[in-house]
Amino acid sequence: MALPNLQTTVLSLSALSLPSFSGLKSTPSSIPRATASRHRLPTRRHQQLPIRAAVETLDATTETSLVEKSINSIRFLAIDAVEKANSGHPGLPMGCAPMGHILYDEVMRYNPKNPYWFNRDRFVLSAGHGCMLQYALLHLAGYDSVKEEDLKSFRQWGSKTPGHPENFETPGVEVTTGPLGQGVANAVGLALAEKHLAARFNKPDNEIIDHYTYVILGDGCQMEGIANEACSLAGHWGLGKLIAFYDDNHISIDGDTEIAFTESVDKRFEGLGWHIIWVKNGNTGYDDIRAAIKEAKAVKDKPTLIKVTTTIGYGSPNKANSYSVHGKDVKKHWSRHVPEGASLEAEWNAKFTEYEKKYKEEAAEFKSIISGELPAGWEKALPAYTLESPADATRNLSQQCLNALAKVLPGLLGGSADLASSNMTLLKMFGDFQKDTPEERNVRFGVREHGMGAICNGIALHSPGLIPYCATFFVFTDYMRAAIRISALCEAGVIYVMTHDSIGLGEDGPTHQPIEHLASFRAMPNILMLRPADGNETAGAYKGGYVISDNSSGNKPDVILIGTGSELEIAAKAGEELRKEGKAVRVVSFVSWELFDEQSDAYKESVLPAAVSARVSIEAGSTFGWEKIVGSKGKAIGIDRFGASAPAGRIYKEFGITAEAVVAAAKELL
Amino acid sequence: MALPNLQTTVLSLSALSLPSFSGLKSTPSSIPRATASRHRLPTRRHQQLPIRAAVETLDATTETSLVEKSINSIRFLAIDAVEKANSGHPGLPMGCAPMGHILYDEVMRYNPKNPYWFNRDRFVLSAGHGCMLQYALLHLAGYDSVKEEDLKSFRQWGSKTPGHPENFETPGVEVTTGPLGQGVANAVGLALAEKHLAARFNKPDNEIIDHYTYVILGDGCQMEGIANEACSLAGHWGLGKLIAFYDDNHISIDGDTEIAFTESVDKRFEGLGWHIIWVKNGNTGYDDIRAAIKEAKAVKDKPTLIKVTTTIGYGSPNKANSYSVHGKDVKKHWSRHVPEGASLEAEWNAKFTEYEKKYKEEAAEFKSIISGELPAGWEKALPAYTLESPADATRNLSQQCLNALAKVLPGLLGGSADLASSNMTLLKMFGDFQKDTPEERNVRFGVREHGMGAICNGIALHSPGLIPYCATFFVFTDYMRAAIRISALCEAGVIYVMTHDSIGLGEDGPTHQPIEHLASFRAMPNILMLRPADGNETAGAYKGGYVISDNSSGNKPDVILIGTGSELEIAAKAGEELRKEGKAVRVVSFVSWELFDEQSDAYKESVLPAAVSARVSIEAGSTFGWEKIVGSKGKAIGIDRFGASAPAGRIYKEFGITAEAVVAAAKELL
Repeated sequence: MALPNLQTTVLSLSALSLPSFSGLKSTPSSIPRATASRHRLPTRRHQQLPIRAAVETLDATTETSLVEKSINSIRFLAIDAVEKANSGHPGLPMGCAPMGHILYDEVMRYNPKNPYWFNRDRFVLSAGHGCMLQYALLHLAGYDSVKEEDLKSFRQWGSKTPGHPENFETPGVEVTTGPLGQGVANAVGLALAEKHLAARFNKPDNEIIDHYTYVILGDGCQMEGIANEACSLAGHWGLGKLIAFYDDNHISIDGDTEIAFTESVDKRFEGLGWHIIWVKNGNTGYDDIRAAIKEAKAVKDKPTLIKVTTTIGYGSPNKANSYSVHGKDVKKHWSRHVPEGASLEAEWNAKFTEYEKKYKEEAAEFKSIISGELPAGWEKALPAYTLESPADATRNLSQQCLNALAKVLPGLLGGSADLASSNMTLLKMFGDFQKDTPEERNVRFGVREHGMGAICNGIALHSPGLIPYCATFFVFTDYMRAAIRISALCEAGVIYVMTHDSIGLGEDGPTHQPIEHLASFRAMPNILMLRPADGNETAGAYKGGYVISDNSSGNKPDVILIGTGSELEIAAKAGEELRKEGKAVRVVSFVSWELFDEQSDAYKESVLPAAVSARVSIEAGSTFGWEKIVGSKGKAIGIDRFGASAPAGRIYKEFGITAEAVVAAAKELL
Repeated sequence: MALPNLQTTVLSLSALSLPSFSGLKSTPSSIPRATASRHRLPTRRHQQLPIRAAVETLDATTETSLVEKSINSIRFLAIDAVEKANSGHPGLPMGCAPMGHILYDEVMRYNPKNPYWFNRDRFVLSAGHGCMLQYALLHLAGYDSVKEEDLKSFRQWGSKTPGHPENFETPGVEVTTGPLGQGVANAVGLALAEKHLAARFNKPDNEIIDHYTYVILGDGCQMEGIANEACSLAGHWGLGKLIAFYDDNHISIDGDTEIAFTESVDKRFEGLGWHIIWVKNGNTGYDDIRAAIKEAKAVKDKPTLIKVTTTIGYGSPNKANSYSVHGKDVKKHWSRHVPEGASLEAEWNAKFTEYEKKYKEEAAEFKSIISGELPAGWEKALPAYTLESPADATRNLSQQCLNALAKVLPGLLGGSADLASSNMTLLKMFGDFQKDTPEERNVRFGVREHGMGAICNGIALHSPGLIPYCATFFVFTDYMRAAIRISALCEAGVIYVMTHDSIGLGEDGPTHQPIEHLASFRAMPNILMLRPADGNETAGAYKGGYVISDNSSGNKPDVILIGTGSELEIAAKAGEELRKEGKAVRVVSFVSWELFDEQSDAYKESVLPAAVSARVSIEAGSTFGWEKIVGSKGKAIGIDRFGASAPAGRIYKEFGITAEAVVAAAKELL
């Protein structure tokens, strides 16, 4: 079980029991603990704002001419930025300017001066290429992250206005979008988090959690399978506070959607259990958009899809309507959001103060979730294993850790893509998160790996103390790789519990046996790839590589044998064989390349002395990349072909993943 | 442009023009051509069967008691095999035995003794975990690939009956399934191929292409996004001869589908443009299943989903109904399929003989498609580039190659996931493959990368001479990685044209900039990963790595600089700088690791002499794995973090992907 921190983690776990492996257990006390920095609390968004008097002005509507000036301003901001950058997409911001205006100016509740105020409404631009829409809105609303100079450096090095929305660059942007379909799935995660927290913490006399999740998605998002997966779950869970705007503009990059997208989206969403509203004139039908939002809010047991038919690039404004002409009026009109936002937050803070007085215990848990400050000493809950502990598959050990952590970490929740009983991810003291039991913490994702990953990104980015985990067979990371990459990029800190991590799964055969997957995640930035070999490695974060047994002296073994996960046992056995023949053998566990890379040169030298070039690694996966560890004179034993269907023991033997092979390779090098 | 062969290819192509790069062009004649074996014709499924008299008995129906004996036999074969293997899934074979029986015994047209007879009906078990259903049916039908001893070695090492259906192991299995959702998408590709070929080659007096594609999919497949993507396209394309059975058994691994899958599948498929039929009693409603198939065949402009409600594991038969008791009757009943199949093929062969006489030119093209024997001299159509050729982005050069090949390869077809004008994949002499123009060869996949890959797998496996290619931005291989992996595993020979292959795409930022992707495909088995640097590298298959310039003698350069793709130009520039300072510098292009690995030790030594440890590689991606090429004393320049949004030149500079960095690294090593 990896420690919850900002780093997204992939845990690769075996399905095999490790009945005879004692090499590791004989030296538990020598396992170096992770450095303190790894234990740091994820307090990424700490907010401290003064309490102000509550002011409620959000329901006021604005005269139409000002609305149109505002909408045209949004369009101009987008056009100007795209022209200046000579790069980017003005079409969506222009077509969606009306709904953007209505959302940010009339509907949404937020505080521009504290983009992380907990009870804000969330907005996701799933059609991320239209990011100038969001930057223009954040700018008008008064967010410090998007000032005029930021708009001018759109898509430039070091700017706060990159080519797609990135939460880690631009406060006010909730999630990272661009790869199509991810955003709407993130929005499902955000709405799930709201529903879950509301059910857990709201009281009849004090509903401190009460906000909406809005998302704009286009035809591209609609075509992506991930969107269907996530929206099917949103319907299943009855996420009534999720309101999606489908920008139905009939255009994708290759031309009219007629060439590839003629399905009835309405009918499909009806099938998925959503409420559907069609705004036929999205270009100027402002009241229709307003009415649709009102109707959507009234439907509490279903998410709503508002199909807004727009003309892409509608309203290419002439200079007479430009921002430079009307900017002053528009800015003045929008300027109320700063004091209003402060009031909203102050009002909420006062409400929370009341809550805290009356519901002390719940308030403490809730504060941990919204601050990301984990309860003191939480890590002591992790089990420790000794020589007497029964050997077991690491996925079972992982379940012990998950269940231990769930007791002390109020924000830990998650589940599996229909493999909970194989991945061992059920939290035994909780029920299922479902439409009518949203307070529970076991999430049933169904066979929807990609949607699962992106939903977890949304959960993680909802509140710093929410720590989502999700699980499937390691090979099916291929289905969700785009979402995992975004976890890593956007610093979501999702824990991926990936079991059945090699040919060791046996009879299911090559479609189910990962080969290149360890290498592929070791090559991915910001991912902590862990392949633990036993209970203690599963429970903790270690230095990546460390010596599990050694009969040499003076840091000069004849040979170093290196293993990970299930194959560490094989390395240990080979070591015993070689020692019987009088060799000085060091056996090293290499649970994480990334953590090892972070250690001091002295530590690395103490584990892998440069003078010892006789090194053999063994891992039931691709040897790609192992030259780095074993050196050009060493030997990497692995599998550079696809697997096969047979009992695991037979495949290990046929593929040469054996102690004999390690011994033979070592002797060649000696 | 990679050569069409059995190997699945990923081409990583730049979006950048290469205006100033002349290093490569100065030595075009020294580029070693690929070995002859790479040019071999893909004649993977050559069939030669005697012509027999036509017999038509398929419409006969069988008395119900015999049908039930047959169905129970299928169930028993599955149960027995699973029990013997102590592994596998008997539930689906039991529940789906009735539809399986009706398809293979009453409906489908095939020849058991020639599983590759061109005009056979195709069957795909998308719910591949239920493979014992298919093995039992192939066994009863008389396929030589699944004899009694094969059933007894279910899921054992070296058997023809692996844990999931694998086309490369078991003749009679059309595609490789198991990872859920892939099979139904493959089936869409198979049905596309039939519709395309029928439109191109059928004549009013001789319809030589006329077969159906049947698929069984379960709840798991239905939840996967890839299935929705592919089925949306099937509806869009009006694939009337695609008939899907949805085994609606309300159970997935984690329990009742109520916990995660409550959408209305019927409504969704109605939205996708399918015809829907519900067979309420799939357990014993044999006539309802038969009527549904008849109705489905009558609907010619839409694919049909037959929802068959079954009870998983229905009819757990007692020994009184077992195969050992009724096997003899059942075998006798099924035995007619061998002569009938031979007759069907003979009848078709006679028809084709007529066709060949009358339509000589079409017949020649068609034969190339069904045999996989490419027209002689086809490779001469590829463009050759000289010093005078204008420099250009490799994606543009790729388009020239694709268009040149389309003229000589009748089976080349494909397209992009809504990025045709960016990926440069349009075949200019053809129109779009659409519902009413299925004879055309540009396929518009929409923003559905995962479905696209799996559909291409289906196209490739329909006929040996069909060579599908597909395209998107390289980073979005993450969306389709599961399908690419199956291309590689099942030997489909799909060509993946992946453009915008680095931070070089600039302003779109880190969500769109591949970093770890080259490494991740180099680690994947059976994939030929090519990163060409110019026209000739794009046009051909080379030895993987070769010297593009060298001022050393005696195979003893001071330093070796290694580049790929867009960065080869940087390596060449650095080489020029160092030579000005009197160094003996070799510059090497490393277009493909896999091809380099295949070369002789002597060739490798001639390119990368072991004695020269001063080696610097440069590639705008993860350095993971490069230790293998540069050695432990060399230096790999690359990017081990995510990218950023800015103009490309700026990002290259900020990340140190520059000639200066190469020169500095080289000097450190000298």
